[in-house]
Amino acid sequence: MKVTVGISAHHVHLTKEDLEILFGEGYELTVNRNINQPGQFASNEFVTIRTPKSEIAHIRILGPVRSYTQVELSKTDYIKLGLDAPMRESGDIENSAKVTIIGPKGMIEREAGIIATRHIHVPIEDAEKLGLAGYDYVSVKVPGPKGGIMYHVSLRIAPNSYYEMHIDTDDANAFQIKNGAELEIYKDIQE
Amino acid sequence: MKVTVGISAHHVHLTKEDLEILFGEGYELTVNRNINQPGQFASNEFVTIRTPKSEIAHIRILGPVRSYTQVELSKTDYIKLGLDAPMRESGDIENSAKVTIIGPKGMIEREAGIIATRHIHVPIEDAEKLGLAGYDYVSVKVPGPKGGIMYHVSLRIAPNSYYEMHIDTDDANAFQIKNGAELEIYKDIQE
Repeated sequence: MKVTVGISAHHVHLTKEDLEILFGEGYELTVNRNINQPGQFASNEFVTIRTPKSEIAHIRILGPVRSYTQVELSKTDYIKLGLDAPMRESGDIENSAKVTIIGPKGMIEREAGIIATRHIHVPIEDAEKLGLAGYDYVSVKVPGPKGGIMYHVSLRIAPNSYYEMHIDTDDANAFQIKNGAELEIYKDIQE
Repeated sequence: MKVTVGISAHHVHLTKEDLEILFGEGYELTVNRNINQPGQFASNEFVTIRTPKSEIAHIRILGPVRSYTQVELSKTDYIKLGLDAPMRESGDIENSAKVTIIGPKGMIEREAGIIATRHIHVPIEDAEKLGLAGYDYVSVKVPGPKGGIMYHVSLRIAPNSYYEMHIDTDDANAFQIKNGAELEIYKDIQE
């Protein structure tokens, strides 16, 4: 069973309220390009993430607005920022890393910083056919000179989703994985 | 069979001639701290690596001087610098990435930029006892929530060496490996 990889650069999700604090009352995100997950898009809007130690500018907002504000950076980013952020599933931000998010019209401080789990989006309609129904995690094999196996790749089996694996830039750079690579899923390796 | 990990931050090795161009005639590296490999040390001297796209400052020189000048950065670094560098064993720098190395007294341009292979230093006297004699590569298992297996970990079996695995910061951050972690060697996984 193969899956295509999409590399997620660091990005931010915002609530409508936080978007308006950062960009002004009534502001709406504008679409730069649609991404493969239905209804979601890379916006033209960027924020800066700041901590007492450092800051990272030009972090893109993914739309549309959500019910929670979440900052998804890599471990490499968090080391630069002097933060120890937890690895989490999207939406699980309680007690995550505290960051200041800065937009052109304002700034907010939120416990919202996570490292996203390696995960695979699986359309619920196809989970049976793909042989992935009933699994929470799989392992994925990476070929090439810096290849290996990733354990604990979580499955997000949901309606209205596009079959695709998401990894962050740390995994992409460590394993030297290119965007669009086809990787092999191992269901029986679960260490 | 276990091995202890040392995380190698990006660093530079220089010839005596290149050191003198960058730091002045007759200059000698000074010891900040010895590293585990006998006779080698982290110096107090730093350089900047520059490309047409960007630059990275404060990259430490490892001493003593060598017979070749070599720049060992992570894939993450090379992306920032706009370079596509090969993964190589130490010393194999022909046709590697071209960088400008800048010191306080001068600058040089060298084809010297590599991504170092994941490798394990094995004292030749202990190779048999460790069960590693005759192997060129092994695989290494990483526990934890971002765990997995690294294939193609090269063995550097040599006299006067200290038994230790070296990985770069991309592997450390992707797998969330801490300096000094003890990892398991798999001799029978060779994909």
